[in-house]
Amino acid sequence: MDMQYKTPAEIEKRSFAIITEELGERVFPEEIAPVVKRVIHTTADFDYADNLVFSEGAVRRAMDAIRNGAHVVTDTNMAKAGINKKILATFGGEVHCFVADPDVAEEAARRKTTRSIVSMERAAKLDVPVIFAIGNAPTALMQLEKMIREQRLTPELVIGVPVGFVNVEESKERIIACGVPHIVARGRKGGSNVAAAIVNALLYQLTRREGF
Amino acid sequence: MDMQYKTPAEIEKRSFAIITEELGERVFPEEIAPVVKRVIHTTADFDYADNLVFSEGAVRRAMDAIRNGAHVVTDTNMAKAGINKKILATFGGEVHCFVADPDVAEEAARRKTTRSIVSMERAAKLDVPVIFAIGNAPTALMQLEKMIREQRLTPELVIGVPVGFVNVEESKERIIACGVPHIVARGRKGGSNVAAAIVNALLYQLTRREGF
Repeated sequence: MDMQYKTPAEIEKRSFAIITEELGERVFPEEIAPVVKRVIHTTADFDYADNLVFSEGAVRRAMDAIRNGAHVVTDTNMAKAGINKKILATFGGEVHCFVADPDVAEEAARRKTTRSIVSMERAAKLDVPVIFAIGNAPTALMQLEKMIREQRLTPELVIGVPVGFVNVEESKERIIACGVPHIVARGRKGGSNVAAAIVNALLYQLTRREGF
Repeated sequence: MDMQYKTPAEIEKRSFAIITEELGERVFPEEIAPVVKRVIHTTADFDYADNLVFSEGAVRRAMDAIRNGAHVVTDTNMAKAGINKKILATFGGEVHCFVADPDVAEEAARRKTTRSIVSMERAAKLDVPVIFAIGNAPTALMQLEKMIREQRLTPELVIGVPVGFVNVEESKERIIACGVPHIVARGRKGGSNVAAAIVNALLYQLTRREGF
């Protein structure tokens, strides 16, 4: 055990140095690099250096939105648990996740649809600028895409990183194609942890916590 | 979008069929297969087919423990959020995570140690059989190993799947070596999502929810 690195802050700094070193020749634009590196830090999976795609100016716009009090909506309580809610609150933001609300389950059962879809409809009614962080449900991402195309929703950013083998890749390609500001992990990979990591990367850049 | 698979249950069943298909010649013992497949389902990362190691009888013992009311301790609230607490409660179990407790932070600051270490010491005082699910902090895993070696702790199972670049691999090798029943993801990979997925795989086998 390398006891040279003891505190969580020291360990994190050393981890990012290792990631930068192993990325080697792969250098990312200044705005994007902290997001890519934090996702790799969260997963130890360098595939994300290749599969993460960013719409033009997505990171800057999302950071501005957070600075101005944007809220975050997740599709799972796990993603909500992983987001640094203290830092978000310093800008006036909150994290919402409606999927486990009892009345969402009731409505989904009544309408024979999924809780993920109903929870996104609820989120669309929030009267604040919103960043969506979707790490699990392709149906949630599909519902967002539908509402965006119908001009019922104009998110500040859609983080589209559901994980899985069925409907997942298609749901991501649709978000990329629909013109919304996005950060998407193309392919099968992603997860609630990845969704939370991307939100945290934005928050930490805003607080300049990370100088790496 | 392949709309043939619409409900979450249908999607999950089809996902496991794809995973089984892509594993091809790789066939795992009956007890282990549902755990390996659920981790791949959670991450879309087939590396886990190679890096997951199980001590002899670990899955059976852990399932017996849950059936008899064992509790689960996690190192992060994210892992806690991902565990199916309803099913665990049907057997009398609860999930505990002490790391964000204000008095844990106070004690860690006073003793100049980490919150992860203090939270594991708290967990060791629980007066019930315990399964530890560690997906983030190598220091938590190290502390467990220390208490096990000192015979201050005899867990039913240690799920050792912290993720990262510093101290992580060593902490896992120590858990493997110390003789405790374990499920460990060797190497850098893991995460709170993986820790939760392994607990859920045990729970779903107990409820025979998955026939795949």
